[in-house]
Amino acid sequence: MHDKRLDSPSPADTAVETPREAGYRMPAEYEPHDRCLMAWPTSTRSDVWREHYAHAEASYAAVARAINGFEPVLMITRPQDAAAARSYCGGEIEIVEMPIDDSWLRDSGPIFLLGGDGNLAAADFEFNSWGGKYLPYDLDATIGERLCRYLGVKRWAAPMVLEGGSITVDGEGTLITTESCLLHPSRNPLLSKADLEQILKEYLGVTKVIWLKAGLGEDEDPDTDGHVDGVAFFAGPGRVLLHMVRNRNHADYDNLAENRRRLETTDACGRELEVVEFDLRSHPVSLGATSITENYINSYMANGALIVPTGGTDGDAVALERLQEIFTDRQVVGVPSPIIAFGGGGIHCITQQIPRAGR
Amino acid sequence: MHDKRLDSPSPADTAVETPREAGYRMPAEYEPHDRCLMAWPTSTRSDVWREHYAHAEASYAAVARAINGFEPVLMITRPQDAAAARSYCGGEIEIVEMPIDDSWLRDSGPIFLLGGDGNLAAADFEFNSWGGKYLPYDLDATIGERLCRYLGVKRWAAPMVLEGGSITVDGEGTLITTESCLLHPSRNPLLSKADLEQILKEYLGVTKVIWLKAGLGEDEDPDTDGHVDGVAFFAGPGRVLLHMVRNRNHADYDNLAENRRRLETTDACGRELEVVEFDLRSHPVSLGATSITENYINSYMANGALIVPTGGTDGDAVALERLQEIFTDRQVVGVPSPIIAFGGGGIHCITQQIPRAGR
Repeated sequence: MHDKRLDSPSPADTAVETPREAGYRMPAEYEPHDRCLMAWPTSTRSDVWREHYAHAEASYAAVARAINGFEPVLMITRPQDAAAARSYCGGEIEIVEMPIDDSWLRDSGPIFLLGGDGNLAAADFEFNSWGGKYLPYDLDATIGERLCRYLGVKRWAAPMVLEGGSITVDGEGTLITTESCLLHPSRNPLLSKADLEQILKEYLGVTKVIWLKAGLGEDEDPDTDGHVDGVAFFAGPGRVLLHMVRNRNHADYDNLAENRRRLETTDACGRELEVVEFDLRSHPVSLGATSITENYINSYMANGALIVPTGGTDGDAVALERLQEIFTDRQVVGVPSPIIAFGGGGIHCITQQIPRAGR
Repeated sequence: MHDKRLDSPSPADTAVETPREAGYRMPAEYEPHDRCLMAWPTSTRSDVWREHYAHAEASYAAVARAINGFEPVLMITRPQDAAAARSYCGGEIEIVEMPIDDSWLRDSGPIFLLGGDGNLAAADFEFNSWGGKYLPYDLDATIGERLCRYLGVKRWAAPMVLEGGSITVDGEGTLITTESCLLHPSRNPLLSKADLEQILKEYLGVTKVIWLKAGLGEDEDPDTDGHVDGVAFFAGPGRVLLHMVRNRNHADYDNLAENRRRLETTDACGRELEVVEFDLRSHPVSLGATSITENYINSYMANGALIVPTGGTDGDAVALERLQEIFTDRQVVGVPSPIIAFGGGGIHCITQQIPRAGR
């Protein structure tokens, strides 16, 4: 496989071996973490936050503090926003200044890998702002490389556009993604589905790719073209949490039912997948003239915990109770943060786990 | 002294003794607390929060959680907002449902007293929504009585309009207030300055009232007519923290300088007051079309801590450092919450200490 980015300045790009060949794999999010990477919302992204920027700051800080109760958080911030980030995060959270365009680090940042020797490395996919939706994005296109250098981890530049929110893995060879996003012409128009699978296998160390049909529809998630992290994630080995709707008239009914059918399969190890259905809930929150519905699936698995975005509505208690039934071995912690949904994502979108190195 | 509120249903109102006569006094905020009372912002107060209600919820929760690290918080909420309050406060904070109009419990709620026997009681002053500025306020006018009943504390109905934010006491006989608020015709037009002093002495157990000229000007604080908790508070026995401006062209320069002169006096015990000057800082935050300047003075002294409202600006670090120099025996904790300033107050305005009973 040839590296398209011949102009990339990182020496790691010249590696002839792919991560798979070097024995690296992307661990599951439920495996132990060293820490959690986040990025502070950027004060210039007025098309994202509009009149609610300070609200976004308050909620990012609440998320960081919640996660920090379970694993350390490393918060990246633009130098211009560092004083605010320090004030909101209050000394418990490590703050590092780096230029960025936007704060959805799950999508713009590197994806961390572990080698057979327990060494940490990263696959750094190309980032094109979800198909060029928000400009500029040149800083976010290079944040992965700068983060790898800062963290001192070996970096592979993966030769395709991919956002971290568009995949979920079990760390044992299986990756789940959606056709709606990965096959969208705004991402990799010159690569076939087989090409994409091959690159995912080489750079994330997976052996089987399961293609769901779609994420949530345009009304719910216009920005990502249907990231898988809005509808499903690996909850454990052989176990997938999946958004479902019961109402046949719901705009997402057909897609989610089709996703369900596609999970009637085996994982890379040959296990039948257990699908845990999670009802899509609608409890709107008003933020100015905009009505937001929280996506409880877009959660982050911290060490010993599931950090869940909630809406601050009477739907939260039911959703959290259901998640606690499913995740009996984790503390389920809701963080009301409808402003993050307003900005286009959830807690999963603004976090990225750094797996714990070592065998 | 006769009780004007003969129609009040509380049996405590028939007490012939005043708190002073019964040996009660209002302790200083820096004396030990049993817990802190707060009230959840009300979803119907759209004239206060406009498009920022969910932001207010996030910040009230952040304040409650910060205080709860030092003393338990009891959060009052409208039944309609209870699910949201529970979701935001996350199980650590005790939530009690009671009808209220608005959430500035410092001003609408009771003021707690301790007797010579260490018993807890309350002086419940009349509340008229800062001179009728926000309607309706009938529920807030009775929240003091309902809280006293809920808490099981003896209640005195004090025969004057007073907001808790308009006074600060040292617990040893001295009370500081402002003429701009207490003498404003919207509060007690039929009572003279001497009448007001007499009622404060009888119901709060003080022996000396020091009258500052004014709080911050109309631009900064139109709602309260210049509460003292925007410009000064007792930081310790004989020690007053006071807002000052150095710029002679500042709209508040003359008033704050006059306040400074009026504190060149002795407290009720005959001590010369030590005045600790604190520079009024201007680091505006934009919340939609509104520009907010944080008032760092409007802080709450929790057990072992000073909980300070901050703006999430580069002014916060300097202000917090200065406060930590002053309060060497307390942990100074900033909570970025410009939305509370947008709503018309700060952390002091949304809290009320319940002193620790016992000798």
